[in-house]
Amino acid sequence: MKQSEFCAIEKYMQECMQDSAHDKEHVYRVLYSALDIAKTETGVDYDVLITACLLHDIGRKEQFENGALDHAEVGGDKAYAFLTGRGFSAEFAEKVKSCIVTHRFRKSNPPKSVEAKILFDADKLDVTGAMGVARTLVYKGGINDPLYSLKSDGTVSDGDGDEASSFFQEYHFKLKNVYSRFFTKRGEQIAKKRKRAADDFYNSLYAETTEAYGGARLLDRLLDGDDEEH
Amino acid sequence: MKQSEFCAIEKYMQECMQDSAHDKEHVYRVLYSALDIAKTETGVDYDVLITACLLHDIGRKEQFENGALDHAEVGGDKAYAFLTGRGFSAEFAEKVKSCIVTHRFRKSNPPKSVEAKILFDADKLDVTGAMGVARTLVYKGGINDPLYSLKSDGTVSDGDGDEASSFFQEYHFKLKNVYSRFFTKRGEQIAKKRKRAADDFYNSLYAETTEAYGGARLLDRLLDGDDEEH
Repeated sequence: MKQSEFCAIEKYMQECMQDSAHDKEHVYRVLYSALDIAKTETGVDYDVLITACLLHDIGRKEQFENGALDHAEVGGDKAYAFLTGRGFSAEFAEKVKSCIVTHRFRKSNPPKSVEAKILFDADKLDVTGAMGVARTLVYKGGINDPLYSLKSDGTVSDGDGDEASSFFQEYHFKLKNVYSRFFTKRGEQIAKKRKRAADDFYNSLYAETTEAYGGARLLDRLLDGDDEEH
Repeated sequence: MKQSEFCAIEKYMQECMQDSAHDKEHVYRVLYSALDIAKTETGVDYDVLITACLLHDIGRKEQFENGALDHAEVGGDKAYAFLTGRGFSAEFAEKVKSCIVTHRFRKSNPPKSVEAKILFDADKLDVTGAMGVARTLVYKGGINDPLYSLKSDGTVSDGDGDEASSFFQEYHFKLKNVYSRFFTKRGEQIAKKRKRAADDFYNSLYAETTEAYGGARLLDRLLDGDDEEH
């Protein structure tokens, strides 16, 4: 790929994501991890891969504004329109679109080409380890979701099976379960190496929170009942 | 303290903080940790301590809206007005106010009473360990600050000495340095126990990020120079 082509595609990505520093950082990590994974795969079309990585999340804003939209579908369409509008062939734009549409996991629509599989794994890697924890916490901060929920007895829930959304709930629902079903060996290798950092962090945060809430029992002893409604 | 008094003060705190799930969670952790620390101190006025803990951050909203304001000063004044307005004595309200005003560290204005020292330490504990990391990431997400900055050669800065704000910069500027100068032994003990979780997380996140950016070198080899401006 020519440097000037890369810059034009990169510029379009940045325009689509100007509101989020975190989304842009994510795109570069996915791109670089994809290139690392690609070294161990054969028959990779690097132009397709690089372009799909740069543009894979350009539909995020639309999904954020309308939850009924799927950013993978929207992003695929936007990428196709941008690329053909800039003179890339319909065949190339279609290959890129196909990678983008399948980068979000759905059983009915798995990634097919080697480039699509690499993008899928590189994107998934960014949900593993300390990075997966950091991105989830950053996201929870943006939407003002809590770190944890309390059980009916006032103690801290570990999040397992919680209905209410929180960081602890997300850890059990998603973060701890992203270490298998990669499409590339290299992707799975890197993921497994990172698992411990995420688990250690969750366990430490749960222990610290539980320790802090231990003081709630002391409060009960310090408050005198009275006739007013609580 | 009567249960009804506690509930009235708690309700006022919740009204002042209705916009932030995270700030409210923090208040309860500070309250419970303060009661835990208080067990190992003598001469503690629990009514002053509980009230000061509940109300210590009620000036946050004003500081967020006007960075020139100090939430400790604003919160102290708001607490005094609320308490005297609700029939608490001026002497009691003054003691609470004094704890709140000194809970934010400034060399010229250290906490003086035992209750003020306990509040200070309990509040500081919530910046230690995995909780300090989690709260910082949540905050960075809310203000859309990046996780890290890049050096001029395109590699990831570890944050040490960075001017631009990021999570890595905050780790070096603040998070790694909050484990000494507690006013109570119990506070310092708990803090030191938590340090490793924060350091491990930072080291893992930095290693993962650096590993991902290793792929940037591969990109350089894949792009052909051309005559257009980059």
